[in-house]
Amino acid sequence: MKNIKFLSQEKTESKIRIIPLGGTTGVTKNMYVYEYYFQNQLQDIIIIDCGIGFPKEQNLGVDLVIPDITYLKDKTKYIRAVLLTHGHEDHISALPYHYANLGKPPIFATKLTKQFLENKFAEFGNKVHINEIDYRKTYEFGAFKAEYIHLTHSIPDTAHIFIKTPAGNIYHGSDFKFDLTPPYEQPPDFAKIIRAGQQNILCLLTDCLGVEREGMTLSEKAVGETFIEEMRKTKGKFFMTTFSSNISRIRQCMDAAAVFNRKVVFVGRSMKENTKLARDLGYLPLYERLVIKEEEAARLPPNKLCIIVAGSQGQFDSALSKISQKRNPNISIQSGDKIIFSSDPIPGNEDQIYSLIETLSELQADVVYSNIQDQLHASGHGNQDDLKILVRLTNPKYIMPIGGTLRHQYVYQKFAKDLGYGKDKIIMLKEGEPVWFENKNAYKSERIETKNIFVDAETIGDVGNTVLQDRKTLAEEGFVNVVLLLNNNNQLIAKPQIITRGFVFTPNEKDLFAKAEVEIARVLKQPGKDHNLIRKEIDKALTKLFIQEKGRTPLIVITILNL
Amino acid sequence: MKNIKFLSQEKTESKIRIIPLGGTTGVTKNMYVYEYYFQNQLQDIIIIDCGIGFPKEQNLGVDLVIPDITYLKDKTKYIRAVLLTHGHEDHISALPYHYANLGKPPIFATKLTKQFLENKFAEFGNKVHINEIDYRKTYEFGAFKAEYIHLTHSIPDTAHIFIKTPAGNIYHGSDFKFDLTPPYEQPPDFAKIIRAGQQNILCLLTDCLGVEREGMTLSEKAVGETFIEEMRKTKGKFFMTTFSSNISRIRQCMDAAAVFNRKVVFVGRSMKENTKLARDLGYLPLYERLVIKEEEAARLPPNKLCIIVAGSQGQFDSALSKISQKRNPNISIQSGDKIIFSSDPIPGNEDQIYSLIETLSELQADVVYSNIQDQLHASGHGNQDDLKILVRLTNPKYIMPIGGTLRHQYVYQKFAKDLGYGKDKIIMLKEGEPVWFENKNAYKSERIETKNIFVDAETIGDVGNTVLQDRKTLAEEGFVNVVLLLNNNNQLIAKPQIITRGFVFTPNEKDLFAKAEVEIARVLKQPGKDHNLIRKEIDKALTKLFIQEKGRTPLIVITILNL
Repeated sequence: MKNIKFLSQEKTESKIRIIPLGGTTGVTKNMYVYEYYFQNQLQDIIIIDCGIGFPKEQNLGVDLVIPDITYLKDKTKYIRAVLLTHGHEDHISALPYHYANLGKPPIFATKLTKQFLENKFAEFGNKVHINEIDYRKTYEFGAFKAEYIHLTHSIPDTAHIFIKTPAGNIYHGSDFKFDLTPPYEQPPDFAKIIRAGQQNILCLLTDCLGVEREGMTLSEKAVGETFIEEMRKTKGKFFMTTFSSNISRIRQCMDAAAVFNRKVVFVGRSMKENTKLARDLGYLPLYERLVIKEEEAARLPPNKLCIIVAGSQGQFDSALSKISQKRNPNISIQSGDKIIFSSDPIPGNEDQIYSLIETLSELQADVVYSNIQDQLHASGHGNQDDLKILVRLTNPKYIMPIGGTLRHQYVYQKFAKDLGYGKDKIIMLKEGEPVWFENKNAYKSERIETKNIFVDAETIGDVGNTVLQDRKTLAEEGFVNVVLLLNNNNQLIAKPQIITRGFVFTPNEKDLFAKAEVEIARVLKQPGKDHNLIRKEIDKALTKLFIQEKGRTPLIVITILNL
Repeated sequence: MKNIKFLSQEKTESKIRIIPLGGTTGVTKNMYVYEYYFQNQLQDIIIIDCGIGFPKEQNLGVDLVIPDITYLKDKTKYIRAVLLTHGHEDHISALPYHYANLGKPPIFATKLTKQFLENKFAEFGNKVHINEIDYRKTYEFGAFKAEYIHLTHSIPDTAHIFIKTPAGNIYHGSDFKFDLTPPYEQPPDFAKIIRAGQQNILCLLTDCLGVEREGMTLSEKAVGETFIEEMRKTKGKFFMTTFSSNISRIRQCMDAAAVFNRKVVFVGRSMKENTKLARDLGYLPLYERLVIKEEEAARLPPNKLCIIVAGSQGQFDSALSKISQKRNPNISIQSGDKIIFSSDPIPGNEDQIYSLIETLSELQADVVYSNIQDQLHASGHGNQDDLKILVRLTNPKYIMPIGGTLRHQYVYQKFAKDLGYGKDKIIMLKEGEPVWFENKNAYKSERIETKNIFVDAETIGDVGNTVLQDRKTLAEEGFVNVVLLLNNNNQLIAKPQIITRGFVFTPNEKDLFAKAEVEIARVLKQPGKDHNLIRKEIDKALTKLFIQEKGRTPLIVITILNL
């Protein structure tokens, strides 16, 4: 009796709240905060994933963006653990930036994820202990109980996490596909997913990036078969480029190389590092037999070489770009060589990828990429049928699509209708938008403000939105720099200095600058103005002039020197 | 006998040269110069197409790019005609910029093309006579004889041009697909293509944009069927967005509207203008019966409206974006409305399109686009099988792929192997690269230098490459503005003024500026330098400082005032 009462109390007095600090609508920068409340008091927090993002502002000189953890600032004492699902950058790589500010909580990860993250911490000069999880164990973090479930994705050791709380059970199903024939790993642990599904799952969080594509996602194995076929036809050097975290892809390429007696060369910093880490864990068993150094490549005939190289997104300074620009002293490209792009363009990268493909083609290499040939690449994300299977196995009350964009969430909402889930059962969250689970029901509450924390070159967070707005104006309109040397009566002592950059080609614009000087003189003629007013009025007058004469609005900077 | 001698003389003494001033490797900005030489003397020139381009530099404030016609400057007296293939912007819209500089040659075009181009000239305040071609006629321009051949594409009245010269015959096969069931036009004039093919075609110029796609391109008719199906299911307003030049698409949407008793509203300047021009030519017969004004839309129930709207590429200031931002006083979006994107994203536009789709989805509209549904859009460009058919019908000696990029040319080169054309038979030209045809053989000659003529806001050609390079630096790094007030001994009279924009957030960087002042003082301490040297040394010192401290290289502008 007492027991029953206790249970019913819990039912009403315990609540969960999930807050995505990233990842729901921007694909990358994944970070999910799970909070457990009892009698309206916050008791425990666990965090799932802490990844970097790749911002739209990249042409404004911003490299990365990391989650804003301001919300957690005064709550570090409640943080019981950080749990990581897999080793991709957008799930783990922000942790070294934030670890200290999170109060250094215990970290849990699968084997390869642990290795990759330790390497990230080492780049920051830090050594941090990471717990390698045991799939058989149930971990307790305050009121949270967590079990890892083995899944398949485009990186080994990917997991889902089943989370039990007194307020309900949640299935955290981030990036995955159901690969039924993974070349080296175990298939997904369907039995464990089903066992979780039999325990009243209140909410399924699910990868939704592939929701626009029909059918099941291609197995990684199909790509290995393509490597064999393509290598068989290649008379010269065989190049393969993909993401350096895609260890199975790399291993399949090494297996093909072994069949054709080719030695393997890794080129590019990330490619060398990641494969070394994977070798240390035993994920690349042919490493010792096949891998030679870059410098040794030149001594072998082309048909004895398989070059696995970073730079599949066409980045200007990547290893493959450098080879195409003949900037690699050991490896060149000739007629007879084949280059396989085993990757899809990340939207926005098309231009640079195609430009690289063209440069390689001009060197008379045979370039093969996904537009012109199938089965060169298998996505790591489940298509519609993968996603349907996860829903059927977990049988949740609510579904929260994550890891896509707002558009993918809307498509998921439509798609879930056929599975019997109405709009009220699909929880669509923006960044910082919390969802409460109470009495087995879900409701949203007010959005928590989050900012973009930009990481630019070496420094973190020093590029604010004002700076970016200025850069945008500078990019599109250029600037005009006006220097005035004034006496105490605000009369010009010397001719105004006008310098422009990115605006007009100066030598052609004497007339324009003469008109600008007239405007400046006009503003200065009226007495009794302070410098701020002078600046404001000159800005206004010149803006008007430049619109009239050039149809443009450059950024105007006015410096006044007083003597 | 005499005749035979004459022919053989011609054979050796007459030559043709084709120079692409745009269009071969950049998809857009199509302009082809055909030259005829006799005894090494230039005799006649015809120009095919004269279109605008959409540059990669759009985020640097450049709107358009037009072909560089410097090469033709001293040859206007030889220009016999400008022939236009169809009415798309990238084939006709640069002509108003260049017409006078080309010596105002006669212009020939099909019916709709003529109407669209006249409208373009009118925007420039010019009235120009354009000859509407007759498909049955052979036109003579000096040694060139030209016949128009009716084709199908994504705009009505698209043609190929068959060009005969004493030095050989050329088939100019720009943008097309073989639409076997065009909804309103005649199918392609296969008989005439075959007749051309029986006259020893020396070179086929062929659209190659679709060469990566298998099979035949979808017929435009399939899209009309989709409109009917989608409109049947729509309870609220029906929106359709596509390119405003796609008159058949628009007409099919109007036909569907007639079936369901919906009135048609055109929204957006280009959409209103183009449909008015098409109506005047009789291409939109239901116009009078169906079309109402925007202001009348609010008075009709949603299920009586079909809104055909510009902005399918998600442009921020387009009609559809304005509706999504609730900036259109007459038309709003509610639950129950459907919005169909009947277009594919132009690479590079994905971000803005998806962002528009998300805004529309947030208004609870049902948004349908090509990722999630087939047959919403049919490409205007032939796939592999269309391209193969053209080769088989024309049976040329040489093939020159045009209207794509370098990548498409390389894919075409591979693809043509199966058709029996070796690499030596595929002519791959870059912009400005001429190909000669002499004695029925082709060879390339030295590239003619062409520049990008950027059109920025209202002015043409005033954005040089220096300005763009500066804008790129400004976009990625920002600038630092240093003003020094020096006496005659180059000593500072006042504290250096340092202002930055787009670089760092100034209030946080007192230390950095203090260090910069130290560097400036150090440079000035050594006597005997002129201003140029001072500028140079300060620039060097500050660049080093900013790299060290910030890892960045802003544009540095130094102004020195002497007293």
